Amino acid sequence: MWDAAKLASGLMTRIVEPAEITARRRNRSYAAGMSAFRLPTADIAFILEHVLDYDAVAQLPGYEHADLETVSEILDEAGNFMAEVVAPTNRAGDLEGARLNPDGTVSTATGFKEAYAAYVDAGWGSVPLPEKFGGGGFPRTVGLVIQELMTTANMAFALAPLLTQGAIEALLHYGSDEQKQQWLPKMVSGEWAGTMNLTEPHAGSDVGALTTKAVKRADGSYGITGQKIFITFGDHDLSEQIVHLVLARTPDAPAGTKGISIFIVPKFLMNDDGSLGERNGVHTVGVEHKMGIHGSPTCVLSYEDATGYLVGEENIGMRIMFVMMNSARLSVGMQGLAVSELAYQQSLDYARERSQGRAIGATQDSPIIDFPDVRRMLMTQKAYIAAMRRMMLLTATYTDVSTHHPDAAVRTRANEIVGLLTPVCKSFGTDLGNELTSLALQIHGGMGFIEETGAAQHYRDVRIAAIYEGTNGIQAADLVGRKLPVRDGASALEFIATMRELDSELAAAGDEFASIRTQLNAQLDTLEQTTMWMLRTGATEPNAVLSGSTPYQRIWGLVLGGWLMAKSALAARGLDDDGIAESQLPLARFYAEQLLPQAGGLAGAATAGSRDLFALDADALGDVVRRGARV
Amino acid sequence: MWDAAKLASGLMTRIVEPAEITARRRNRSYAAGMSAFRLPTADIAFILEHVLDYDAVAQLPGYEHADLETVSEILDEAGNFMAEVVAPTNRAGDLEGARLNPDGTVSTATGFKEAYAAYVDAGWGSVPLPEKFGGGGFPRTVGLVIQELMTTANMAFALAPLLTQGAIEALLHYGSDEQKQQWLPKMVSGEWAGTMNLTEPHAGSDVGALTTKAVKRADGSYGITGQKIFITFGDHDLSEQIVHLVLARTPDAPAGTKGISIFIVPKFLMNDDGSLGERNGVHTVGVEHKMGIHGSPTCVLSYEDATGYLVGEENIGMRIMFVMMNSARLSVGMQGLAVSELAYQQSLDYARERSQGRAIGATQDSPIIDFPDVRRMLMTQKAYIAAMRRMMLLTATYTDVSTHHPDAAVRTRANEIVGLLTPVCKSFGTDLGNELTSLALQIHGGMGFIEETGAAQHYRDVRIAAIYEGTNGIQAADLVGRKLPVRDGASALEFIATMRELDSELAAAGDEFASIRTQLNAQLDTLEQTTMWMLRTGATEPNAVLSGSTPYQRIWGLVLGGWLMAKSALAARGLDDDGIAESQLPLARFYAEQLLPQAGGLAGAATAGSRDLFALDADALGDVVRRGARV
Repeated sequence: MWDAAKLASGLMTRIVEPAEITARRRNRSYAAGMSAFRLPTADIAFILEHVLDYDAVAQLPGYEHADLETVSEILDEAGNFMAEVVAPTNRAGDLEGARLNPDGTVSTATGFKEAYAAYVDAGWGSVPLPEKFGGGGFPRTVGLVIQELMTTANMAFALAPLLTQGAIEALLHYGSDEQKQQWLPKMVSGEWAGTMNLTEPHAGSDVGALTTKAVKRADGSYGITGQKIFITFGDHDLSEQIVHLVLARTPDAPAGTKGISIFIVPKFLMNDDGSLGERNGVHTVGVEHKMGIHGSPTCVLSYEDATGYLVGEENIGMRIMFVMMNSARLSVGMQGLAVSELAYQQSLDYARERSQGRAIGATQDSPIIDFPDVRRMLMTQKAYIAAMRRMMLLTATYTDVSTHHPDAAVRTRANEIVGLLTPVCKSFGTDLGNELTSLALQIHGGMGFIEETGAAQHYRDVRIAAIYEGTNGIQAADLVGRKLPVRDGASALEFIATMRELDSELAAAGDEFASIRTQLNAQLDTLEQTTMWMLRTGATEPNAVLSGSTPYQRIWGLVLGGWLMAKSALAARGLDDDGIAESQLPLARFYAEQLLPQAGGLAGAATAGSRDLFALDADALGDVVRRGARV
Repeated sequence: MWDAAKLASGLMTRIVEPAEITARRRNRSYAAGMSAFRLPTADIAFILEHVLDYDAVAQLPGYEHADLETVSEILDEAGNFMAEVVAPTNRAGDLEGARLNPDGTVSTATGFKEAYAAYVDAGWGSVPLPEKFGGGGFPRTVGLVIQELMTTANMAFALAPLLTQGAIEALLHYGSDEQKQQWLPKMVSGEWAGTMNLTEPHAGSDVGALTTKAVKRADGSYGITGQKIFITFGDHDLSEQIVHLVLARTPDAPAGTKGISIFIVPKFLMNDDGSLGERNGVHTVGVEHKMGIHGSPTCVLSYEDATGYLVGEENIGMRIMFVMMNSARLSVGMQGLAVSELAYQQSLDYARERSQGRAIGATQDSPIIDFPDVRRMLMTQKAYIAAMRRMMLLTATYTDVSTHHPDAAVRTRANEIVGLLTPVCKSFGTDLGNELTSLALQIHGGMGFIEETGAAQHYRDVRIAAIYEGTNGIQAADLVGRKLPVRDGASALEFIATMRELDSELAAAGDEFASIRTQLNAQLDTLEQTTMWMLRTGATEPNAVLSGSTPYQRIWGLVLGGWLMAKSALAARGLDDDGIAESQLPLARFYAEQLLPQAGGLAGAATAGSRDLFALDADALGDVVRRGARV
């Protein structure tokens, strides 16, 4: 069984750094242009201890061993591992990418294999998974932080464990006992990787349109035939076995999402003695050439009567998908945060080192950090990153409460909140991922556009996160179409009321908090008023609600962030632990005065209805063609 | 002499499409994934005729031949040329890039040479240049539209003529008669290309820090020695000669920008008979690996006692640079517009063709254009593109007035307006270039992240435009530091007053315009109030003004765009020319109700002063390091 204390104390000695990595780092062949990766563990510890009351999570039944002190040690060790072992592979992943070899195998970039082996050896993937299957039994909150640290180190690399975790969760919830025993232990340890196979060329956001067939055989297994695209780590050389979870349709299944089933389709069939057997009928026919996350092989997989094993029962595939959805979406939102952190660090280093002209009042050349507009770009990154981290971790703690609290009513309410905040975290985190990595690139000036600098990689890497795991438009539709209607709007309104409870504390906190209080109240009004409009309008005009969903979702993100920043600033009073505390008030004030008011500027778009959006038909939208020549 | 009518009527027969291009287009080897490039000439014609009173430009002395009918024909022909000859090279430029050969020469991508030869043959570069040197003598406005069309066709390719034009303008204003005769005719025709050599490794935004030396020789020429970086089309195979304009410093020059001189440094020395002579002492030592505009060779040039000829006199280099600045910055702002147009067209095509699920009320699968959130992304692109084009062309017409109006007072005022609007056009155009190409990519879903689709290229290509020719932060500093103080703020306030004059027309236009009027007034108030704050604060707190400069600049862009959209909608009443007219009201209303209110959300950031930005010192900004381990 996995032992947290042993890990925390002994991990560093157990990690044997692969010689290749050591050598590469020594000659810096891939570190060129990349600044050091630093760990945001001080901020994380501050959040867990002072902002989110992590102790309440640690007191949940089953998490008694996961007290804050133990968790902090584990996270420090995890951070060190990611910085030492994973971060050095980030550049190689971008430069080399993953490649499909002539023999049909897929190779990852230099260092990935060794780093993954060390990751499995250290057992990082297993920390938040059940002890029954070899996991550490730690809260989801802890698992999310480990994912953040790993993703900051190398987003492309971190996708392999992320997808494996998705497959594990499906099996944990819906696999038979036999399936769990057969597949889970080695997936939990990371020795085997997992994938999720949803998308087909004509079934992306509309997953119900998929056509991959599953035909039952006499022995109870199924023959799976079809083509899947955009399969993240669909094939690779990191693990000996890959366990694909494949969405397919049995011959007599109902149309659409109601006729989808999920199958375990291993890359290699298993012999009775548990050893790997023959190659199954699944093959990689392509690896995509993408704008970013080159290190992650995005595969086209062809299934030709591959042997698959049904998970749960037929036609409940979408139900299984929904179980994983909130978890995966929160993880993707966190990718936006994680890559922003890395880009921010690099831009801060550059701004401190790059000298260019004199700031006002300076008597010699100034580092560009002394120029107000560069400061704005840095503060904008830092404040948003802080807000994102707080909302992701808040949602994660509610996830833990929703699964482990002894009181069913508390679990239910926590589950509602997770449902409500997940699309907000996913969309706000990934939209900001794009915007903040752009600011980080901008700080580099012309150097930012040169690939050697490394700033461009973050901007390219993170761009996919607003698209996959449900585009941010799909998130917005989920927010207004599924999450707002919960209890006729009471779920969302109660959460807004909870945020308003901070007001008395802000009022009592004095002048320093006055502008924060004013702005937060103003934008809580915006959120409440637009929410009321959505609730009023939704029943009769679903298209009007969908029309405003994206700006409305952004309002949620801005206000949720502003509330958490204000909470942080209040919590920081009187603390003098490590420098994080004293930054909270300036960050919260900057956020409240300069970022949060954007919510008010979005209210018009959120409540304008559908008229303007559909005022021009498709031909009018393309009016440029009328006089022009087609090439 | 160049003859506009001849061009307009005979151009299509003169363009002989290179066989290679024809062949490539036939087998579609580079067209894969790229949708057709269509011409926005109907919108341009509408703007010139109905929104901006182009006739007033055509009546300026010297532009009598440039009446609207002639100009429209020329622009149609230019568009056809760009679509037919230049657009097909865009993909090859991205895929192949430019390369530095072992022998030190630089090769452009397949098709560039042939397209450039056809471009020179057709004379497109010469249209807005003086007839005295072989140009068409057309207004700057016309030249800018040709640049837009060419940039939409291939941004990387269009940089070669753009830089040549910059060098031409320097010589037109400051070259000796002899220099003009020697260099201009072939630069105007495009047979010779030009470059601008400003940047050095430690002198980017701070151009005054440059160290390249210029030592006067006995024969009056100078020996130029130093290294220049980021030189766009610094070397290539498109033209036999390249005329570098190089910023350098004579041995006894004052420090900083006051000691900069500009020199003509040709790639090949000229023989007395006008033929090309020996290679000059300038060599390409590197071609950068960039995130985008791969087709444009960005060179590191080494000058080793290269022969240079002084332009004007010593130490007036910055004055010469300022002459070109407004023009070049407007052109770069236009790049944001041009690439957005291409990305928009592609995303519109995709949204019309891609079927995915059912929209509300649909009885069969819907193209994604029927989903409200996709509509929002399309309308946002279309409305911003329309606003950008109107503000770029408005500024261009003021440029023409500033150079050609017989009344000196009118010229002076036009020049003030050009100065005021140029940083707004540059920053708004290029920031939106990033944001709109991101929306276009997003509409493609997962396909947008795959390079074969082509959507990613636009996102990568346009990213540099917010950086070069003065970062957008530099534009904001220029706006608040140099342009606002003109006549103690009267220049800016008079322009705002001009925008307010539209109110009576909006009031008289009835209910349909009511929301436009309300929103425009509200955000004109925002603009005026933030402007007054800037003027009040600037005298005593320059850092406070700089701190708010970027959000303030964005407010200008939003309001200027809203005013021009409202003007367009008013102008369109009663017109029924080609479908453009009837789109103006819906677009103006969408802009006013859903985009313009963002200005109000930025007022807080514009006027917050410097306190928040400097509240955290550099160490506190990097607090993550305190507990973390450095790699």
